[in-house]
Amino acid sequence: MNVLFVYAHPEPKSLNGSLKDFSIKHLEDAGHVVQVSDLYAMNWKPSLDAGDTLATKTDTRFDPAKDSQHAFENGLQSEDIAREQEKLLWADTLILQFPLWWFSMPAILKGWVERVYAYGFAYGVGEHSDARWGDRYGEGTLAGKRAMLIVTAGGWESHYGPRGINGPMDHILFPIHHGILYYPGFDVLPPFVIYRTGRMDEARFSQTCDALGQRLDTLGNASPIPFRQQNAGAYAIPELVLRPEIAPDQCGFTAHVA
Amino acid sequence: MNVLFVYAHPEPKSLNGSLKDFSIKHLEDAGHVVQVSDLYAMNWKPSLDAGDTLATKTDTRFDPAKDSQHAFENGLQSEDIAREQEKLLWADTLILQFPLWWFSMPAILKGWVERVYAYGFAYGVGEHSDARWGDRYGEGTLAGKRAMLIVTAGGWESHYGPRGINGPMDHILFPIHHGILYYPGFDVLPPFVIYRTGRMDEARFSQTCDALGQRLDTLGNASPIPFRQQNAGAYAIPELVLRPEIAPDQCGFTAHVA
Repeated sequence: MNVLFVYAHPEPKSLNGSLKDFSIKHLEDAGHVVQVSDLYAMNWKPSLDAGDTLATKTDTRFDPAKDSQHAFENGLQSEDIAREQEKLLWADTLILQFPLWWFSMPAILKGWVERVYAYGFAYGVGEHSDARWGDRYGEGTLAGKRAMLIVTAGGWESHYGPRGINGPMDHILFPIHHGILYYPGFDVLPPFVIYRTGRMDEARFSQTCDALGQRLDTLGNASPIPFRQQNAGAYAIPELVLRPEIAPDQCGFTAHVA
Repeated sequence: MNVLFVYAHPEPKSLNGSLKDFSIKHLEDAGHVVQVSDLYAMNWKPSLDAGDTLATKTDTRFDPAKDSQHAFENGLQSEDIAREQEKLLWADTLILQFPLWWFSMPAILKGWVERVYAYGFAYGVGEHSDARWGDRYGEGTLAGKRAMLIVTAGGWESHYGPRGINGPMDHILFPIHHGILYYPGFDVLPPFVIYRTGRMDEARFSQTCDALGQRLDTLGNASPIPFRQQNAGAYAIPELVLRPEIAPDQCGFTAHVA
């Protein structure tokens, strides 16, 4: 299959760099075709701004959503944005690999999402009516594709457990899994997380690669996180609140997982 | 008091720009001294990389934590980073204002956090022993100061409610409140959130400013979110898991609020 590998770490000779190199080789050895967006190496522009559209300005006021829509619909997007969208459309599977910095993705990767996820491409897609609130959360441009995170963290696994001080890792990643990947249609596989990266020796690196390789071998058939589709009946529209009979005792992120 | 106002929106003539202008004037009219870091206007560099240290490289391998520590301890930080740290030390209160993009802060603001929050300044502070896991989560360089978010969101308030499809707003903001603000010591005030920004007319804007003004008037005495201090007994060290007798039935983000 076609794999788009988006990677965000400034140092090639880092643990992240080694895991990226391992993953690409492992995928290619298995016969997949891999395109890599190495954001630091590409000197990716992180900040969404008026420079992202090539349109001649008739209005001096920049509107992130409207200007994004106009540029997307009229072939006036900055070329780096259009190229990443092409890669997303080409891919069967998207992998995002990054170190967890301040409990989210690095700024350069966040800026990739903000700029590539144009209005009309990743949001503002589909009919808005009494029955549908756009094609999102399980539907949309990228539906039918799969996505997975590879994340490194300096802290211990227990710090990210159900009662760990940082909060549970699956809650920390929910805004990415659900809000960035499931939103435009991806099926989201459970993440591959490496903890305590400061304590990585050769033996542990080898074990980590073995485990990562096994996950990469099952990209095509592993079960995705069972997020609830927005327009399939679980949510009242337009309030977009879970109907009372769905997970009646649950609140918060976990209520959106069937 | 001294207020540092960090603001991230690309368009001055936006709702965010208007709310920023209102807030600064309101604070100054009340006698406070305000410094503004308008990240887009400053053309803030978002990506953390080897260029953030002025040290002569003896090793070609860039280590985000170690190189940050070396630059911080030896006065070799990039000048823009050192200036923002000075503003943070000067401030009694920090306000971060931004539009919620893809369920987090804009990349340019995330990059402000990543670069300004140096090792030795915002993390890697204090003793690590059997009794303490560094000065963080309620202790640290910025202890005794207050912080508040002003956040705009296009979606409806119900979409961000306890069972709303996006997840509860206080959970979406937890990694910022707890992981970015409480971590280096800030007392974190409840956020001021404006929903459904596409439906803002003059009357609603006026009401919004009134409500925001009231929040700004109580910056000095409002009760912060009662996050649990790391080193005050609630957590087992070094596992950093809540002790069994603390909120025994709770898991997830809410367990860390007393």
